[in-house]
Amino acid sequence: MTILIKNGTIITAIDSYQADLLIENQKIAMVGTNIKYDPDQIINAEGKYILPGALDAHVHLEMPFGGTISADSYEAGTRAAACGGVTTVFDFVMQNKGQGLMEAIKGREELCAPQACVDYGFHVAITDLSDDVIRELEDAVEYGVPSFKTFMAYKKSGLMVDDGVLAYLLEKSKDIGALISVHAENADITERRVEKYLSEGKTSAWYHYKSRPEFVEAEADKRIIHLAKSLDAPVYIVHLANKEGMEEVTKARDEGYEIYAETCPHYLHFTNEVYKRDDGRNYVCSPPIKGKESQDSLWEGIKKGDISVIATDHCPFQSGEKDWGIDDFSKIPNGCMGVENLYPYMLSEANQGRISFNKVVELCSTNPAQIFGCADRKGTIVPNIDADLVIYDPQKKFTITQEKMHSDIDHTIWEGVELDGYPIMTLSRGRVVYQDGEFLGEAGWGNFVKRSLKR
Amino acid sequence: MTILIKNGTIITAIDSYQADLLIENQKIAMVGTNIKYDPDQIINAEGKYILPGALDAHVHLEMPFGGTISADSYEAGTRAAACGGVTTVFDFVMQNKGQGLMEAIKGREELCAPQACVDYGFHVAITDLSDDVIRELEDAVEYGVPSFKTFMAYKKSGLMVDDGVLAYLLEKSKDIGALISVHAENADITERRVEKYLSEGKTSAWYHYKSRPEFVEAEADKRIIHLAKSLDAPVYIVHLANKEGMEEVTKARDEGYEIYAETCPHYLHFTNEVYKRDDGRNYVCSPPIKGKESQDSLWEGIKKGDISVIATDHCPFQSGEKDWGIDDFSKIPNGCMGVENLYPYMLSEANQGRISFNKVVELCSTNPAQIFGCADRKGTIVPNIDADLVIYDPQKKFTITQEKMHSDIDHTIWEGVELDGYPIMTLSRGRVVYQDGEFLGEAGWGNFVKRSLKR
Amino acid sequence: MTILIKNGTIITAIDSYQADLLIENQKIAMVGTNIKYDPDQIINAEGKYILPGALDAHVHLEMPFGGTISADSYEAGTRAAACGGVTTVFDFVMQNKGQGLMEAIKGREELCAPQACVDYGFHVAITDLSDDVIRELEDAVEYGVPSFKTFMAYKKSGLMVDDGVLAYLLEKSKDIGALISVHAENADITERRVEKYLSEGKTSAWYHYKSRPEFVEAEADKRIIHLAKSLDAPVYIVHLANKEGMEEVTKARDEGYEIYAETCPHYLHFTNEVYKRDDGRNYVCSPPIKGKESQDSLWEGIKKGDISVIATDHCPFQSGEKDWGIDDFSKIPNGCMGVENLYPYMLSEANQGRISFNKVVELCSTNPAQIFGCADRKGTIVPNIDADLVIYDPQKKFTITQEKMHSDIDHTIWEGVELDGYPIMTLSRGRVVYQDGEFLGEAGWGNFVKRSLKR
Amino acid sequence: MTILIKNGTIITAIDSYQADLLIENQKIAMVGTNIKYDPDQIINAEGKYILPGALDAHVHLEMPFGGTISADSYEAGTRAAACGGVTTVFDFVMQNKGQGLMEAIKGREELCAPQACVDYGFHVAITDLSDDVIRELEDAVEYGVPSFKTFMAYKKSGLMVDDGVLAYLLEKSKDIGALISVHAENADITERRVEKYLSEGKTSAWYHYKSRPEFVEAEADKRIIHLAKSLDAPVYIVHLANKEGMEEVTKARDEGYEIYAETCPHYLHFTNEVYKRDDGRNYVCSPPIKGKESQDSLWEGIKKGDISVIATDHCPFQSGEKDWGIDDFSKIPNGCMGVENLYPYMLSEANQGRISFNKVVELCSTNPAQIFGCADRKGTIVPNIDADLVIYDPQKKFTITQEKMHSDIDHTIWEGVELDGYPIMTLSRGRVVYQDGEFLGEAGWGNFVKRSLKR
Repeated sequence: MTILIKNGTIITAIDSYQADLLIENQKIAMVGTNIKYDPDQIINAEGKYILPGALDAHVHLEMPFGGTISADSYEAGTRAAACGGVTTVFDFVMQNKGQGLMEAIKGREELCAPQACVDYGFHVAITDLSDDVIRELEDAVEYGVPSFKTFMAYKKSGLMVDDGVLAYLLEKSKDIGALISVHAENADITERRVEKYLSEGKTSAWYHYKSRPEFVEAEADKRIIHLAKSLDAPVYIVHLANKEGMEEVTKARDEGYEIYAETCPHYLHFTNEVYKRDDGRNYVCSPPIKGKESQDSLWEGIKKGDISVIATDHCPFQSGEKDWGIDDFSKIPNGCMGVENLYPYMLSEANQGRISFNKVVELCSTNPAQIFGCADRKGTIVPNIDADLVIYDPQKKFTITQEKMHSDIDHTIWEGVELDGYPIMTLSRGRVVYQDGEFLGEAGWGNFVKRSLKR
Repeated sequence: MTILIKNGTIITAIDSYQADLLIENQKIAMVGTNIKYDPDQIINAEGKYILPGALDAHVHLEMPFGGTISADSYEAGTRAAACGGVTTVFDFVMQNKGQGLMEAIKGREELCAPQACVDYGFHVAITDLSDDVIRELEDAVEYGVPSFKTFMAYKKSGLMVDDGVLAYLLEKSKDIGALISVHAENADITERRVEKYLSEGKTSAWYHYKSRPEFVEAEADKRIIHLAKSLDAPVYIVHLANKEGMEEVTKARDEGYEIYAETCPHYLHFTNEVYKRDDGRNYVCSPPIKGKESQDSLWEGIKKGDISVIATDHCPFQSGEKDWGIDDFSKIPNGCMGVENLYPYMLSEANQGRISFNKVVELCSTNPAQIFGCADRKGTIVPNIDADLVIYDPQKKFTITQEKMHSDIDHTIWEGVELDGYPIMTLSRGRVVYQDGEFLGEAGWGNFVKRSLKR
Repeated sequence: MTILIKNGTIITAIDSYQADLLIENQKIAMVGTNIKYDPDQIINAEGKYILPGALDAHVHLEMPFGGTISADSYEAGTRAAACGGVTTVFDFVMQNKGQGLMEAIKGREELCAPQACVDYGFHVAITDLSDDVIRELEDAVEYGVPSFKTFMAYKKSGLMVDDGVLAYLLEKSKDIGALISVHAENADITERRVEKYLSEGKTSAWYHYKSRPEFVEAEADKRIIHLAKSLDAPVYIVHLANKEGMEEVTKARDEGYEIYAETCPHYLHFTNEVYKRDDGRNYVCSPPIKGKESQDSLWEGIKKGDISVIATDHCPFQSGEKDWGIDDFSKIPNGCMGVENLYPYMLSEANQGRISFNKVVELCSTNPAQIFGCADRKGTIVPNIDADLVIYDPQKKFTITQEKMHSDIDHTIWEGVELDGYPIMTLSRGRVVYQDGEFLGEAGWGNFVKRSLKR
Repeated sequence: MTILIKNGTIITAIDSYQADLLIENQKIAMVGTNIKYDPDQIINAEGKYILPGALDAHVHLEMPFGGTISADSYEAGTRAAACGGVTTVFDFVMQNKGQGLMEAIKGREELCAPQACVDYGFHVAITDLSDDVIRELEDAVEYGVPSFKTFMAYKKSGLMVDDGVLAYLLEKSKDIGALISVHAENADITERRVEKYLSEGKTSAWYHYKSRPEFVEAEADKRIIHLAKSLDAPVYIVHLANKEGMEEVTKARDEGYEIYAETCPHYLHFTNEVYKRDDGRNYVCSPPIKGKESQDSLWEGIKKGDISVIATDHCPFQSGEKDWGIDDFSKIPNGCMGVENLYPYMLSEANQGRISFNKVVELCSTNPAQIFGCADRKGTIVPNIDADLVIYDPQKKFTITQEKMHSDIDHTIWEGVELDGYPIMTLSRGRVVYQDGEFLGEAGWGNFVKRSLKR
């Protein structure tokens, strides 16, 4: 199957230029002026942009959490991804207490392989660092899963690892070519505040925010950055959402340390005011969305190059599940949807002039591919790279509604948000999996993306 | 009893001037040029300096710790204090798990009152913040003990409080006129490193240092400073001993926050090289003595005004007890002697030109009196202040040896250290309690110093 | 003549205590509880505060400037000083082009000696650093004038020295025990802006401010601090009035450099809004009063200890002279009155709780005495110090009006400002020179204060 | 003329991939896997790298300076450029006092056009900002010369503009779409130090360094950055060579300001030790090469992304001219050679692993094209960009000697420097102008590069 995309404007992290693009054998074969070739299919992209597909570095599909399972099945989640221009998802394998890492990874893969509509990689969340698990770290790296997630939050539910474990993993990661990522919120302070608010009868969604406000997240950011700097290990902070943490990242990078920060579209678009709404519980995620100063600071971080990745933390729950917390914010399952909105939202911001299109490609595609070790196949547009492509119409107006979305969730926090420009086609390894609002792919098409961070 | 001290040079935190000084009713009555008065006793201080007595803000007398009791009884410790120019000690009341605060304080006072040779105040170490204890915080403040100590170290031994408790106490302290002090070291990292070294057969005193190196202390400094700043509460960091922590204190004070740092003479004089010595275990204390960069940084902090207090953390153990750890550093009781060396060492440094005498008075006397709420009676030389005075001979040469010291300990880490200048007399509330090497006081003379931090 | 001041509260830079104070031979002889003595005069200070007299480190008396002579004669200026609690003034000797330093100093002294009502010292402003002048620097130091002023402003009028001269003087000052002070504003930018505004017909007092806004002053602050740091020389910045400069001072001091900043009451009380008033020209001084952020920043600097001195830059001009600039701001003589308002204003702020009384004493008395080398005679209250004292009534309400002031000026920018508390008596070397609104001193009483900065 | 380059590894600022590259009509037509095409010429680049040609943003060809004319004619300089892989040079038009900008530009262009062997753009150095010149600024921008150079150095020789002019130009540049670049050294301090050293008989090349040491350059860096930040205008600092300046750039960029810094290979390779050599005068340039700390800091700046451009300040003088200063460093013409060494030196550093090849492309090609407004034609490898290409052999060993260089200079400061890897071919707009040590181009081939910074 060969496809020739004619007359589009190709946009990478640094260039924007008009050219034709030829796809052969699931890969980009050629970019050039006026390519002469007789392909199986011709796509006319005149007036359109051709972007590398997004890599969503942070999704939780059908994950057991908060007493239920996150709402999107692997199939539904990757279907939504395809329809939003995401051509690779990084899902989290959660190690159960006492469970081996490889057992956890392989069990997860069995679940995913038959369902995946786009390519997928894994991060493994380590919750129990036994001596056995220590021995398995390198096995995971060899298997192509060189990125380990840790929690500084969620002590009561047993996800948290203590600072001794964090320090151990940071040191170890340098030796074995792995990258540690961290959910940074201070568990002890959070949990004491939750207790206090509940005991005072303060039970609305607003107190979800109040129990984990800016300084509680910032404390953990500062702590993990201090450890990473002291041990001279790289670290990746997931879903950064506060100003002080952002500033500490900037400072550390400025000093030459390899600190990566990820943030999410909901932290860039909403503020903590949403928690005062009647449907505030639908916006409950951790870390919670913060105040305007934090939002501004995240955009500043993007402009300065100190946010490295935009991902979604896609972890939706159905309305009925969110309702469990109507009278007790601590019972709301934490998590929101986003995988289908990532690229459309960020590209719309670019289209409105806030940042460049190149920058969006860098944040949503090139950087995650490079940071997580699959830049030889993903994240840019040059010959020999997988033909994971998005064709984008900068003229198209689009209002997000639940009906137009492709996941299994019964609502969206993005309801009513208006976008300038929208993806009109997604190709996954040279196959059209989405076009003009319609999903055209199939479960099982997605491949496991084996990655390596060896330098 | 009236005493007239003639012809000395009076040194306070800001002034140095020649004058006579008259003591009446245990208090300073008058300073002046050529005072005409017929006192009970005349002391000729020509060529000598008259300083306010030191307040040692950090001593642990006969404290149960590390499987034994710190070696100096209350009597021995305050006798040594008197002989080193310390006229007030602040001892730590350790709350046992489940114990009430007032019960702990009063129990301690019963122990101290008959033994104290100089005045004494208390800090209470909170280890178990139950609802009952919360209710007692104000009682302690009212009783004259408005300073609460907390541990970020010593998790296994049950002293550590978690960040939720720390945040609670900081907020509470503002309301009730209290000051929280903190032993800042990261317990989880320390304890994991101890395990690791022991499992590798690394058991010498050097590994005491290696299991709590610079960054482990710095982490806790940064964490507590972040919390104090975020909650806009003052905080007092005891025995600061590392460079990064020092810099964070400087930065916070620079921003206008009320952060106090205390350091100790052993951090200013020794470096971590001592842990490589055969008798390295004698220098084992926590935080351990750090490298030369940290030592330099503490002196810088003193010069910039960002170290507020020099105290001793006097907590000695007999050689036989230190020997428990010959083959396992984790068995060495943590703590060193110092109460008798504080003022002599610091004043000798001043005498050699490193800092001014005024600065030493500020650090060892005026500041602890002001910070801990007894400046109406202690810490300076003006009429109506307690006649707690030291007469200092700047010409006297003195070599520290165990024999010359006045506590019950059988060795001293200061053995052989040569000093320029030495105290030749100490007065406690107008009574000569030490003169020319000899203790002249008595057990029971010392009074409890009731303090207040209400503003 | 002996005076006994009974029952007052003595306030120094660190202490506040009730005591009697005895004056003999123009000096403080004694402070004590209930002094028994039969003096020539007894003053009852019950309920009053006894403070060391202020040292105004920055006044320009009868100085030729802006085409006229500043309005207060030496007699009038020092009379006003006495009535405001200032017992020492530091006046500026302006070197004329080609003039020798000693000639300038001695000429000035001849003018001052017969007129001075309180003690006085000199700074010399160097405007022409010839080889001859270089040779005279040490003569001036020996003569007791170890402080040299330089201008980074006023290029057209010939006062400015270039950066080569500044760097030379900073290096030299270390060798000879002198302190360089600097009027920091960027002359080239200022003068280009003045031209531009005048050419555009923008001639009101507001454009005085606009031609030397925050960043123009800040540039010069940063430049001189950079030079002082690079050459490791101390420097004293006069009348600092902007936020960025304040922050740079804080940063440099924080790094351990000996950088002193002075500010003035008018920068602490007014904002640049005054230049929009009809009588805006009366507030014209250089640097101009800045915006609220700068004012707040100066108060912050005071609280952090990074403002070392409050002085007045007293340099008033009569209304008729100010009127020269009604149609052209560049014709307004630069300068305002203040020597009589310094201590009353600052003490009133203390009385209202903004800062402590001790802090005001430190800023207006102790620090200038120490920084400029006369702390052996001035700036504190201990035996053997000159009996320069202010008795202050914290209950007295006072509204500033031109009628109540004691200088020769026909107006005051402080008109209508209400104060809490006011000085009721000033003693200069043991002589009452002011009491209850009335000047009681005499011309010629003031002595030259020979100073030394040798360390 | 069509050329097909087969089998090379294409390296851009972000990508490295193996592909064929087709050139048509002086432009890149296509990159792809195994391109089928029958071109006029096939080049086999197997095992070689294909890079975008370098843009040397800073050369001075046949420039009158220091009493003579810089040694390379336009032809010789661009010949050397071609042989070093530089396919575009930015030369400086020096405005004479009283001269119009357009007159200066056009006069220069007449000189260059017939001689240029590669493409060329201009910066104009403004030395005399009359009202006429102000009116001409936009003409220059329209003409395609939107970058203006200013000097904070060279006051005596009349090149310096004062801070009023700098501030004016910064403000103006924002309105008209221009970029101000600055030679940052403090003229007054430099010139006073020169005088001082000469008067002391210190005349060797070492005193060239001593008269403009680190802090003298840093002062000017800080000043211009302060002005640019205050006026919110972008600024480009040419040939940055000191640590403090580097740190200030980092800080400003970190705060989000658009500050660009350029440095040169000689600052990255040599230290000020060269001025102690017998031939030290050959290394005399301004700013002088600094100490090791500054060199390290510049490499740090490169790694952090705070050096934006590496250029050469190519401004050579013949040995006989350098000799004028044997007995008086102030008579040495300032300037060194470098245009032929830029890319080879930087790529050799990449080849040895210090930085990535992508980074060298970014610094020497992509960034200067973007910053100076010709990224639509230069600085990357995608279809439709000028076929300015370098083929680089990473295996080739090369020792720099004067004989192998292609300019007219009789010596080189790079003599004996050994490189790993070397360019084996340069193409200028699709024409081979250099191959295997031999220049194959011709005078007059180079075109004027009209640029635009309109956003």
